[in-house]
Amino acid sequence: MKFLEELQSLKEQIKRRVQFDVPEGTKNIVIGGMGGSGIVGKIFQEMYTKMPVYTSDSYDIPDFVGDGTLFIAISYSGNTEETISSLSYAKKKGAKTIGISSGGIIEKEADVFVNVPGGLQPRSAIGYMLMPLLLSFNVVSEKDVDYAYSLLKRIDENNIKDEDIAKKIWETRRIPVIYGIPGYRSVAYRWKTQFNENAKVIAYSNFFPELNHNDTMALRDTYRKNEFFFISISGGKDSRSEKRIDITKEITKTEMEEVVAEGSSQFEKMIGLVHRGDYVTYHLAKLRGVDPTDISSIEELKRRLSKE
Amino acid sequence: MKFLEELQSLKEQIKRRVQFDVPEGTKNIVIGGMGGSGIVGKIFQEMYTKMPVYTSDSYDIPDFVGDGTLFIAISYSGNTEETISSLSYAKKKGAKTIGISSGGIIEKEADVFVNVPGGLQPRSAIGYMLMPLLLSFNVVSEKDVDYAYSLLKRIDENNIKDEDIAKKIWETRRIPVIYGIPGYRSVAYRWKTQFNENAKVIAYSNFFPELNHNDTMALRDTYRKNEFFFISISGGKDSRSEKRIDITKEITKTEMEEVVAEGSSQFEKMIGLVHRGDYVTYHLAKLRGVDPTDISSIEELKRRLSKE
Repeated sequence: MKFLEELQSLKEQIKRRVQFDVPEGTKNIVIGGMGGSGIVGKIFQEMYTKMPVYTSDSYDIPDFVGDGTLFIAISYSGNTEETISSLSYAKKKGAKTIGISSGGIIEKEADVFVNVPGGLQPRSAIGYMLMPLLLSFNVVSEKDVDYAYSLLKRIDENNIKDEDIAKKIWETRRIPVIYGIPGYRSVAYRWKTQFNENAKVIAYSNFFPELNHNDTMALRDTYRKNEFFFISISGGKDSRSEKRIDITKEITKTEMEEVVAEGSSQFEKMIGLVHRGDYVTYHLAKLRGVDPTDISSIEELKRRLSKE
Repeated sequence: MKFLEELQSLKEQIKRRVQFDVPEGTKNIVIGGMGGSGIVGKIFQEMYTKMPVYTSDSYDIPDFVGDGTLFIAISYSGNTEETISSLSYAKKKGAKTIGISSGGIIEKEADVFVNVPGGLQPRSAIGYMLMPLLLSFNVVSEKDVDYAYSLLKRIDENNIKDEDIAKKIWETRRIPVIYGIPGYRSVAYRWKTQFNENAKVIAYSNFFPELNHNDTMALRDTYRKNEFFFISISGGKDSRSEKRIDITKEITKTEMEEVVAEGSSQFEKMIGLVHRGDYVTYHLAKLRGVDPTDISSIEELKRRLSKE
C-alpha cells in the first residue's frame, strides 16, 4: 500500500469496533509496547485515568505486577523483542494478559488476543491498535467516532496548512521541537517520532507546564536557538494553557507555530492532531526527497541485536 | 551560598535521615512536583516499583486518586502553583497527603509535613527532597548511603572528566542530547534540565531501547546531525544496554560521549550520575560566562501567570 493510502486509512480504522472484556478484579493496567505500537499505550494513559496505567517501553515490568494487573501487550508485528519479554514476565507473575497485534508471537502467548489487520507500517496502524483500548474502557462514544471520522476526512481532503508547516521547516532547515499541553503530551511525542521515521529528521518534544521550569531558561538565551522550529500543539479553549503558550513566547521572544485542535471531544481533538502530524511529516519527507516508509536502520538494529 | 558550594553540599544532603510513615492501606502513590522538585518524583518512580507510582507535573490529578492514594507534594519553596493545585484536589478526593518542602503553602496544607533545609536553588536540594522518599520506602540502606557519600566526595574533588565534556560541547557549539538506559532515564532528563537551567543551553533527552524505534532513523540521516552532541549515560555492567549503545553508534555512524556510572548499588550509580551532570553543566556555564544561578525567566513567567 502506498504511504499516502496508509495515512488516509486512519478514518476507516477508527470505525472498526473490536473490543475485549476487562477482567473482573483489575486494579491496575500495564501496557507493553515500543515505538509506533508503544505510542498507543501512551495516548491511552493520558485519556484514561480511572485506574493506574503504567506504560512499559523496555524488556522489564514493574514489581507491582501481579494478579490484580491487566497486562496489555501491543505490537503490530506481534514479534517485538521487548514486548514479548515483558509479556512473558507478566504471565509468570500472575497477571491477566491481552495481546493486540496482527499475529506473531503475541497471538500465541497472550491469554486473550485482539487481532488487527496487517499490511501497514506499524505507526500507520495507530487507529486499529488504539480503538480496542478506548472502546473496552468506554473512553469514546459512537458520536465521538462519527465526528472524528468527518474531521479526519476533511484533513485528508485538505492538508495545505500542514504542507505549509513542512515548507517552513524545510526552507529554514530547522530542527522541529513539539510542545504539547496536558492531555496532548503523547501527541507531541507522536509528532516527534513521525518526524524521525517519516521525514528522517531529528526532532524532540516537551510539554507545558513542565517545560516552563527548564526549557524556558534556554529559550531566553540565544545559544543555537535559531536551529529550532518550535511547534505548540494544544486542544484549544483551555485558557490557562493558551495563556502559558503566549507568555512563554513573549518572555523568551520565541516564535512558535501554533497548531490548535479542531473538534469537541478529547478523542476527536487528539486523533485530529495525530493526523495533522502525520501530514506535516509526510510533506516534509516529500520535500526532502526521502522515502517515508523506509525504516531500514530500525530493522537492521533489531537483526543485529537478536543475532549477537 | 555560592553555586559550587551548593553542588558540593549534595554528599551531606544524602546523609540527612528524615523519613515519614507510609500510611496503612496505601495502594498507589501520586507525586506532584515540577522542574527541579519534580525530578525527585521521576527518580523515585524508577527506583521503586512495588506499588504504582504516578508522577503529576501539572495542575491536575488522575481520576483514580482516592482513599487508597498517598499523595506526596514536593516543592522546594512550598509555593509552586501547579503542585499546590494538585495537592488541594488530592485532599478533596480523600487521599492521604505528605508535603516535602522548606515551608510555604505546602507546609500548611499537607496532612504530614517533611521539612527540608532552605536557602538553596531548588534543583540543588535534590538530595534533601529525595532521601525522605527513599528512606521511607526502604529503597536504600545505610551502606548504600556511605558508599554514595564517598563517590560524591571523589567527584567533588576531581571532576576533570566532566569539565572535558563541557569543553567539547563548548568548542563545537553543539546541542547536548542525553540518552539514558532503563533505570536512568530520569537521570538523563535531569541532565537535560541542568543544561537548561545552569548553562542556559537547549538540550533534550531520550532513552534506550525506545529511541531505537524512532531517533535511530534520524541519526542515520545527515539532516542537522552535526548540530548535536550525544551523551549516553548508563549504569555499567548491563551487557544488553551496553550492546545496544554500541550497535546504535555503529549502524548510525554517530559519535557518543559515554558516561558510565561508578559504584555498585542503584542508588550510588544514580546519584553519582546526577552529580556528574551537575558538574558538566556547571563547567559549561563557566565556559559560556553565564550565571548558573540565574533563573529569572522562570521567575518572571511565574509572576506573569499568577497576575493575569
